[in-house]
Parts: sequence; C-alpha cells; structure tokens
Amino acid sequence: MISFESDYITGVHPEILNKLAETNLESMPGYGADRFCESAKLKIAAACCRNVDVELLTGGTQTNAIVIAAMLKDYEGVIAAQTGHINGHEAGAVEYAGHKVLPIPGSAGKLDAAAVDKYVAAFYADASHEHMVFPGMVYVSYPTEYGTLYTKRELTDIAAVCRKYGMKLFLDGARLAYGLMSRESDISLGDLCDLCDVFYIGGTKAGALCGEAVVFTKQNKPPHFLNFIKKRGALLAKGRLLGVQFDALFTDDLYFRIGLHGIKTAEKLRNIMSRHGAEYYVDSPTNQTFVVADRTMMKKLEGNIRADLWEKLDEERTVLRFATCWSTSDADLEFLDRVLN
Amino acid sequence: MISFESDYITGVHPEILNKLAETNLESMPGYGADRFCESAKLKIAAACCRNVDVELLTGGTQTNAIVIAAMLKDYEGVIAAQTGHINGHEAGAVEYAGHKVLPIPGSAGKLDAAAVDKYVAAFYADASHEHMVFPGMVYVSYPTEYGTLYTKRELTDIAAVCRKYGMKLFLDGARLAYGLMSRESDISLGDLCDLCDVFYIGGTKAGALCGEAVVFTKQNKPPHFLNFIKKRGALLAKGRLLGVQFDALFTDDLYFRIGLHGIKTAEKLRNIMSRHGAEYYVDSPTNQTFVVADRTMMKKLEGNIRADLWEKLDEERTVLRFATCWSTSDADLEFLDRVLN
Amino acid sequence: MISFESDYITGVHPEILNKLAETNLESMPGYGADRFCESAKLKIAAACCRNVDVELLTGGTQTNAIVIAAMLKDYEGVIAAQTGHINGHEAGAVEYAGHKVLPIPGSAGKLDAAAVDKYVAAFYADASHEHMVFPGMVYVSYPTEYGTLYTKRELTDIAAVCRKYGMKLFLDGARLAYGLMSRESDISLGDLCDLCDVFYIGGTKAGALCGEAVVFTKQNKPPHFLNFIKKRGALLAKGRLLGVQFDALFTDDLYFRIGLHGIKTAEKLRNIMSRHGAEYYVDSPTNQTFVVADRTMMKKLEGNIRADLWEKLDEERTVLRFATCWSTSDADLEFLDRVLN
Amino acid sequence: MISFESDYITGVHPEILNKLAETNLESMPGYGADRFCESAKLKIAAACCRNVDVELLTGGTQTNAIVIAAMLKDYEGVIAAQTGHINGHEAGAVEYAGHKVLPIPGSAGKLDAAAVDKYVAAFYADASHEHMVFPGMVYVSYPTEYGTLYTKRELTDIAAVCRKYGMKLFLDGARLAYGLMSRESDISLGDLCDLCDVFYIGGTKAGALCGEAVVFTKQNKPPHFLNFIKKRGALLAKGRLLGVQFDALFTDDLYFRIGLHGIKTAEKLRNIMSRHGAEYYVDSPTNQTFVVADRTMMKKLEGNIRADLWEKLDEERTVLRFATCWSTSDADLEFLDRVLN
Repeated sequence: MISFESDYITGVHPEILNKLAETNLESMPGYGADRFCESAKLKIAAACCRNVDVELLTGGTQTNAIVIAAMLKDYEGVIAAQTGHINGHEAGAVEYAGHKVLPIPGSAGKLDAAAVDKYVAAFYADASHEHMVFPGMVYVSYPTEYGTLYTKRELTDIAAVCRKYGMKLFLDGARLAYGLMSRESDISLGDLCDLCDVFYIGGTKAGALCGEAVVFTKQNKPPHFLNFIKKRGALLAKGRLLGVQFDALFTDDLYFRIGLHGIKTAEKLRNIMSRHGAEYYVDSPTNQTFVVADRTMMKKLEGNIRADLWEKLDEERTVLRFATCWSTSDADLEFLDRVLN
Repeated sequence: MISFESDYITGVHPEILNKLAETNLESMPGYGADRFCESAKLKIAAACCRNVDVELLTGGTQTNAIVIAAMLKDYEGVIAAQTGHINGHEAGAVEYAGHKVLPIPGSAGKLDAAAVDKYVAAFYADASHEHMVFPGMVYVSYPTEYGTLYTKRELTDIAAVCRKYGMKLFLDGARLAYGLMSRESDISLGDLCDLCDVFYIGGTKAGALCGEAVVFTKQNKPPHFLNFIKKRGALLAKGRLLGVQFDALFTDDLYFRIGLHGIKTAEKLRNIMSRHGAEYYVDSPTNQTFVVADRTMMKKLEGNIRADLWEKLDEERTVLRFATCWSTSDADLEFLDRVLN
Repeated sequence: MISFESDYITGVHPEILNKLAETNLESMPGYGADRFCESAKLKIAAACCRNVDVELLTGGTQTNAIVIAAMLKDYEGVIAAQTGHINGHEAGAVEYAGHKVLPIPGSAGKLDAAAVDKYVAAFYADASHEHMVFPGMVYVSYPTEYGTLYTKRELTDIAAVCRKYGMKLFLDGARLAYGLMSRESDISLGDLCDLCDVFYIGGTKAGALCGEAVVFTKQNKPPHFLNFIKKRGALLAKGRLLGVQFDALFTDDLYFRIGLHGIKTAEKLRNIMSRHGAEYYVDSPTNQTFVVADRTMMKKLEGNIRADLWEKLDEERTVLRFATCWSTSDADLEFLDRVLN
Repeated sequence: MISFESDYITGVHPEILNKLAETNLESMPGYGADRFCESAKLKIAAACCRNVDVELLTGGTQTNAIVIAAMLKDYEGVIAAQTGHINGHEAGAVEYAGHKVLPIPGSAGKLDAAAVDKYVAAFYADASHEHMVFPGMVYVSYPTEYGTLYTKRELTDIAAVCRKYGMKLFLDGARLAYGLMSRESDISLGDLCDLCDVFYIGGTKAGALCGEAVVFTKQNKPPHFLNFIKKRGALLAKGRLLGVQFDALFTDDLYFRIGLHGIKTAEKLRNIMSRHGAEYYVDSPTNQTFVVADRTMMKKLEGNIRADLWEKLDEERTVLRFATCWSTSDADLEFLDRVLN
C-alpha cells in the first residue's frame, strides 16, 4: 500500500532531522528566544530579500486564525473564496477568533480581483453597512486548495483592490514551497513581500514535523505578539522545535529543493496518469493532482494506492486527490504505474 | 555556562528521538489517526490501570485552556491557587477561552480543601450568586508551581469538596513525571484517575519536544473533541509527532525513568546547595529547587551558571529556581559545586 | 414629511405607555424577578396554549446571538438563508458568540427544506466533516427579511429535516405580529411551539420600546440562563421595563391587534401603490412592501415621504421598503396617495 | 411593605416619563440617529464643559464590558478593587469580552494609588511579564460598591499612576448622580473628563428605565463604535428610548436634582438609623447605607421594610444595604422610623 493521500503522510526531511539531533543537547532559552529561532528568522528575511518580521507558529489553522485576528480591527471580517480553507475546513476557527469569513464565489479555488472589487463596492454602497461586517482583509492561498496558482498579474490586481479600500492582503502559504517551485509560477518570495501585508511559509506540508513561518512585510507585526499567541495557546515552551526546523529549511535552499521535488514527482505522477487516460477535475501545476476516477480505476487502486477521497461526483465518478511531498520516491510512482496497468 | 534555568532547555530524550527517526518514513494518516497515537493512548491507559480516554495536545497553556473550556458549563469558572499557572502566567488564556479564574490564597502553591469549601459555601450563601461566576472546577497542579506536592490525603479532601458541590477536579501535570517519582509522593496514576475528572501528563517538560496527554477519567471526554481542538487551532496535521513521542515515553517506563532522573539530580543539586549553606525559599521534593541567593552567591554564579530569576526579595536577596531534567548530568552538578566553592 | 422607513420609527403603543405609567411607582425587585415579568410569561404561555418557558430580552440581534449560543454545542453552527438577518446585518454578532452562520441560497428570503436536507446530507457525506462546522440549527425568520411567509407545510418540512439530523429549529419572530396576522398565514403560536425548538415574539417592531420574548418550547431552557445573559450584558436591572410591556402586549390581545393594524395599513398602502402603477420587488403579505421605484416616483416622494432605501437595481430603478406599524394612520396613507398623484 | 432594597426598585422619574409620552408619536430614525440622542449627547457634553464624545448604552454590565473591550489592547487586562463590580458581580462579562480583571485588595471599595503603582511596578519588574496579562486600565467606581467616594486628590493620584504606565483610567458611574451630589464630593463632571479617559453617567440607577451614557474624554472614541456595540447585541432599534431619557435627565438639571434627592433622603435615613442606635458597616456619604443589623432590628424590619441582604457577619449580625432613589419619599422614611421604634 503506497499512500499519496496528502503531503503530511511521512515525517520530517532527513536534513531537518539531522539538525534536530545535532542540536539536541544544546541548552537554549525557551519560548522562541533561542538562537535557532533567531537564525531562522534572519534566513527567511534574507530569502525574502526584504526587511521583514518573521514569527514562527505551529500549524496552519492556528496560523490563519491568529494572523487574521491580529491584523483585523474588531469590526472587520475577511474575504475568502467560498472554497477557501478558512471558510470550510477549519471548524470555524477564524470566527471563533472573532472575525467573520465573507465568502465570495471563486473559480478553481481562486478569487477574482473584479469580483472582490464588486463585493466591496456594494458593501460601501449599502446604506446600512455600519450594521454589517466590514471587509478588512482578503485571504488567498497559494497554491489554492485546488492546487492552482495566481499569476503575478492576478495577485497584483487583488492587491490593488485591497489598497483601494484599505484592506489587508493575507496569503496562506501552507503549500508555498510547491507554489514557488511550480513551472507556472512567476512569483518570488520578494514579490509576496511587496504584494501582501502578511503571508506564511508553510513548514508542515513541506518537510517539517510542524511549523509555519509568518512574514509581516510592512513593519506591521502587532506589538506584544508573543503575548497574543500565548493567550491563544500557540506558544511552544521548546520554541527550538520550530527554530531548528526552519533554520534547516532555509539552509542550502532546502525549502526550495523540497518544493521542487514535490513538483517533479507530481509531474511524473501526472504523466503516468495521463498515459493511463486519466481525466483531471482541475488542472493543477503544483504538488496536488485531482483525478476523476471511474469505477475501473477505483478498483485498480483499491488495496494498493491510497489517495484522498475529495468528492463524489456521481455514482460512477469520484474525484481523488494525489499529493506528492519530500518523501515521494520513484519507486512509489513506478508502483502506481504498475497498479494502473 | 551551564543552565538550570528550566526543564525545557534541552531537546528530546534520545529514546524518543530514535523512535521519531525509525518511524520517519512510514506513511500515516494525519490529524492523530495514526497507529502511534492509538498505541500511545493505549499505553497511557495501561499505565493508569483504568479505562480512560486519552487525547494528545501540544503545549501546557493550550491544554489548560482547552480542557477547562471543554469541561465547564458557560456559567462556570475555575478555582485556582492565586499562584496557579493559569491565574498569573498564561496571558489570560483561560479567560480568553470564556471562563474566569477564581483565585484563592494558597500556601506554597497548594490549595487547601477547607479554604475551597469555605469559598464555595460562601458563594452559594450569597443571595446574588446567580450574578456571579459559578465555581465549576478546581484546578490543582502536581507538582505545583513551587515544586510542592499534595499528599493523597490532601487531594482526596479536595476531591471530596468537588463532589460535594458538583465541581470537576482538574490536575495540571505539566511536571507530573517529577511529582510521581518524588520520594515524598504517595500518589499513582491510578489514584489520579480515581480522584480527578481530568488531568494531563506533561511531555514537554519531561523529555519530549512538545506534547501533553490529557486523561479523561470518567468516560467524560467531550463529544467531537477533535473539532473542539481544531476550532482552537490545536490540531496538528502530523499528529504522529505527538503519537510517536508519547508511545516512546510509555515504552519501557521511559516517562518514569525521566522523572526519576530529574528527582535524583535535583536531590544531588540540593545536597550541593546545602553544603554551600544555601537557604531555600520553599521546600520542594521535586525537580525544582528554589534557592534564596545573596549577593555572594549571585556573583559566583554569574557567567557560570544560569538559573531562573524567580523573584527579588530585597536589595540583598534573590530567589533563583534551579530545575533539573532528563539531560542534567553529573558533570553539570560537579561544575555547579565548583562554582559555588 | 411622513415616514414609512421602518416599523420602529415611533415610540410605544399607548396601552403599553399607560401601563408603564400606572405601575411606575410600584416597588419591584430587579433583574426580571418582578410580578409583571412573571405575569407576562404566563400570558405568553397561555397565548401559546403550551407549557413553555419564556424569557425576556431587549433587542433582536442580542436575542439571535444569545439564543443561538445557548442552544448550540461548541462544534455546531447555524444554517440560514444567505439573506438571513443573522448572516448579513448583525455585524457578525452570532460569530462573535462563537458560532458560524452557514448560509444557503434561499428564495425571497425563504429557506427550502430540500435545500437544507441536501446541504446537511453533503456535510455528513464529506469524509473530513469532523474538521468542519456541524450544522446544529436551522434559523428561519417569520416573516422573512423580505416580508414573506412560510406556509405551515413548508415549516413542517423544515422541522422534519431538523429532526432527521438532530438539528434545532429556531424562528426569528422580530416581526411575528405581522406574520401571524397576515391573511396568508396558516400558522398559530401553538404551531410554532410544536414545530420550533425555540422562537421569539418580537416586541420592538410591534409597538414596544424594546423587548423580545424568547419561547423555549420543549422544556429546553438552558440552566442558569439568567447568568448566561448577564455574562453577555443583556440583563436589565429594571427588568420591569420588559415585563410591563409584554404584560400589556398580551393583555386584551394587544399584540395581535397591533399586528392586524400593521397588516391592514400595509394592504391599504399596497392598494394605493398599485393604483399608482407600482411594481413590486417581491410579493409580501405582511407589513413590509417592497416597491421598485423609478425616477418619477422617487421625485414625487422626495421631501414628502421617507421610505427605506433597500437596494439600487440600476440607474433608473431603486427598491424602496415601506413599513407600517401600530402608529400608521389613515392620514399617513392619504398623504402618500396625494404625493403619488 | 416599603422597600429600600435598591435604587432600581421603582420606574422612571415623571419628567422623563412625560418626555417619553410627549415625543411618542414623532417619527425618528432608528439606532440612535434620532434628534434626541443628538441633543442628549450635546447636553451631556455641555454639562461636562468639555469637548467630549458621548455614546448611549443600555445597562451597567454591558457598558463595563463594552468600554473595557473597546479601550484595551488584546494583551491588556483591567485593574480593579477586589470588591469591584466587574470582578465579582457581573458573571464574568469582562472576561467573556476578552480581558482579565486584575484584582487588587482595596479598602471600603476603593483602590489606593500607591497599591496600584506597586502592582504595576512589580508587573514590569517580573522577567516573565510578557507571559502575563498587561495592566492596561484601572477601573474605579464612583461611588464605589460600598457607597464611598474618592477625593479629587485620590483620583488625581490614581490618574497619575495611569499616565506613568500608559494605562487608561475608567470610572464606572452607575451611581454617579449620588456621587457628584454628595456633600463630601469635591469632584465635578469636568474633573472626571480631565482625570479619566472614559467614564459613564449612570441612568438606570438615577431615575431612568435604562441607559448609561459613556463619555470618551480624550477624542478617543473607538472608530465604528456603533458596529462594535451591534456585534455585542447592545444596539437598540428604538435608540430614542435612550436619547429621550438622557435628554430629559440633562434638561433643567434633572440628573443632579435626582442625585440630590437621593442624597438628602439617605441623610434622613441615616439620621433615623443613628437615632435608633444603628451601627454602620462602612461610612457612606452617598445614597447607599450599610447597616449592621442585629436580631432585634431584623425582627422589627421583617414584613415591614425590605432592604438588601448584603452579607451575614455572624449568627447575630447581618449587613443590610438601604438605598434611596428619586422615588424615596418622606412617608417611606417616616414608616421606617415607626418600624424601628
């Protein structure tokens, strides 16, 4: 049984594990005040080529809820695509943190700048908008939940709408490694710094055991942010766990190498799939592949290959998500190829 | 420079690290559905000798806030010693989770059953108590923030007060390993199951990178608890990080061996301290030692030994906390001895 | 200038005002423990012909947020029509109270039982639904925000879907007086008790200065509800303000007489409008009338008649809402008639 | 049976009732946009002799929780006397609004500037204060819960401590009328504007049916405050209810006349009590009188006079609170006198 169920099925990249082992006996202060947290932040800022503030958190939903709550005013909510992770799959964590998600229909997981503009214009035109949740932020994910990517043009347009209305732009980069390294990406970390007010660099789905690195791009890190995350139960005593991992990820381009590996193995996977006549639910240029599987394919996979059951289209057809990650091997892909024969 | 600043200054116990490495490439489902989470829970239940429900969370403040919010009714708050960790040092996380901490003066970190009884009796005698926060839970820590321990008798008395008034008893076991293995402890995991409604077995301060194991003792795990913790940003995608660590901690008694090592090194540390004429701020039979340091001692330690600056008593005297843990070595202690000469 | 802007433009019905004056000097205990609160609750229960629990709150948004939070489990949210008041016009009060609103497209403000069923079935069919907000309640308003009414059949169908999935049914009756007294209504207070788990009888928009009476229909009033509302700042010291008003509203059928007056004046208003060739945005059988006004009509109204600017359809056409209430007089309507000539 | 149980036992002052009646049929916009809200705010600002922002809310607990949440940063809590209303008698409403109450022992309900200074200095001296709730505000009540008053000197000293540490000063004026008009008061509304960042002028306990007027004194009204209170369920549709009442209270000095009446009747009450040998629990110069009643007195009062059962001191002695208000009459006091004979 080989699993392509997600990009968090295996543990930690060996280069990270080695660093955890090497530094294990070193005495360090707690709560993120250690030298590896410091070094990781500096390396991330260097990779961004910008003078940014970096903070390390543990998981994706936690990061989304905390960043949104830390950046919004009380009267503001966050615009997201209806399919956005924060809208459907985070148990209402953003609302629990005090801010309503304002869903707008998107396409293949992506928001459209014009649709956002129209929504916000309508909001301010509404005579009773003081009784409504103000749109204070736009949330995009890169790649999206469907593995798709915004072009630099598209993201620039969304950023322009944000500036027009004084909204923040927040980019969820849980899978950023695979976005940046996609052949179709024309966006760099530096671009994200210029376009977004805040974004995060996902570790958990890119080879770490846990960890997301939040980048505040406009000298806009909230004061006493440590207290903010402590209050929400998100501060680790052994902050080194995050520091050492991100230090390793941003040493010798490991983060980008992991991203590239995910992309290359995903391309191989799509080659195999296409050779076997697979139809795609959506075209993804990143590490996730959405295949419309018929009964024949389902039978072949059964007991051999595990994929994520994304959605049942009808009696005959099921959408499966195949994800690759740092640990996906050629052997895994060859096995898939054989299984589909 | 040798540090006794806390019990989270070093990384992870080698037996845990090995298990993380060994299992690293194994494909596992996410969000705690892996076989190591399952196995860890079973082993913990076995160590408790009770039919309990175990859930794994990441950190102490997170666990306190989540357990309290999950167990209390909306109109209830939680009684704690004024010095209780939830009252002073968690950035208001419990209140943020919707429940007021109701502080009662304690002694050396400990609550007194009679004082709790008196407080609750006065509450119900107050004609306007429907306008007040109901006492719905008693929070104790074992060991306390001052390293002290409740006797079984004392804890039984507190549990009786809880039952008398329909309150829950919750024990914070962030340092439970050192409590259970103290020479002065007359309490077992099974006893905790009988006396408490819920408690947790701290991993972070007992050799893990992170992780706290919550034990619901009375078939009282809240329904859809996974959703509850997801909503609060506390669900790890790679739940294996917690599962593998607790599986290792409860294999071959590692948790208890770590506890015992912390106790033995603390006893040696106190012997050294006493030999050098140290005065104690409080008598602790666990892994924390509170020393009243005068200027002479402060000068000796400076640049050689790091301890936690607990409290400045006056111009002359400072309370320092020395903590031992899994990684404290005889060499560390010998160095301390030399420094104090 | 005559205003039809809303049903809360004037003060309080004279019969209520008289009772406030008559009882003004009577000493009463505070916080709702007075004899008029008691009497109002009994009279409302009598009007319901059911053994129900009644609680008095102050305003509509407050009542929605409190009832939803009091009835839902932590992991549950509330299904509402996209146009539902709680979704768009309450500043996120329900989310602030901890529960996500789950919007479903409706029609003329109404939810469809089949659409609700489909939504909930899809939820439970989703393999990752433990990470999503559980549908725990259906929120309907009667009349809806568009003045429309559910038939008893439609509401019964929605109630059946609720029972099928263990969801609560909550009916927002901010304008219930006008719903019950509409010619098109086939629903009684008793029916609402049978179909809903909880609903409220709106006072503010039916002749009171403030006040909404929540009816818990299934012996399901949350314990310590007084503390629940106190914690949310919703408990009045002079609870008599609510008690006396609802006592008056449910004396000599005042509540129903006010409803009927609103309906009759609305019918006259629609007759006038139709005579002047008005087009309706939606057909409302209650006290709200939604007129599509062109420039000619807008010019005629300007400076003479105030209506609520509901929505701008295009350059030419604007939707205006005309509301009637206890104080709408024949003179007001005649003036409108003259203005439109 | 004559009641001195509280200052909210009777309805509304006749001058307010008259104004409610007179303005009853006037059409007004909702949600506080009416001309009486406007006028009330101007009159209050005029009474303050300062350029302040005034907002009208409904009740005391609501106002405390909203003002505190609106003025504090996320990481801040509010210092209060242990006996402060927000600490003990508001069901945890302030904590529910996201901010911990930080209790300090007081004396007869009053905070001491030096004690506050010491507390805050200790906070900042604590090496781990980033993990603690920051003191961001000082809450005082005037009169206090024990009817006592701060002198201008004392309040100035507290304000100085606030400025020293960048904390806000918030004064709860639920009974402000009786504070300002006390013979022992040396404080004016203007002084409060100068000393406090925000305070409120209580209506409910000074002759209104409901209503508290919040005064933001330093051009510091939070932006979109209407949305803030809507989100917390505190916005009345018929905002006129508050506007008309406060307009009346600040016409012809009604607010101050009500305060003075409460003070004069309280003085008469204390004369009567003293003549009958009563002992006082605390010396109050305002409208509340705390009498230590022995069994003999309790027996005399029983069935004749209702007072608030404040606290049972021991088997023999009970503290009773007698409150006067706008409706307390000489006849009431004469009856009390006869009863005590």
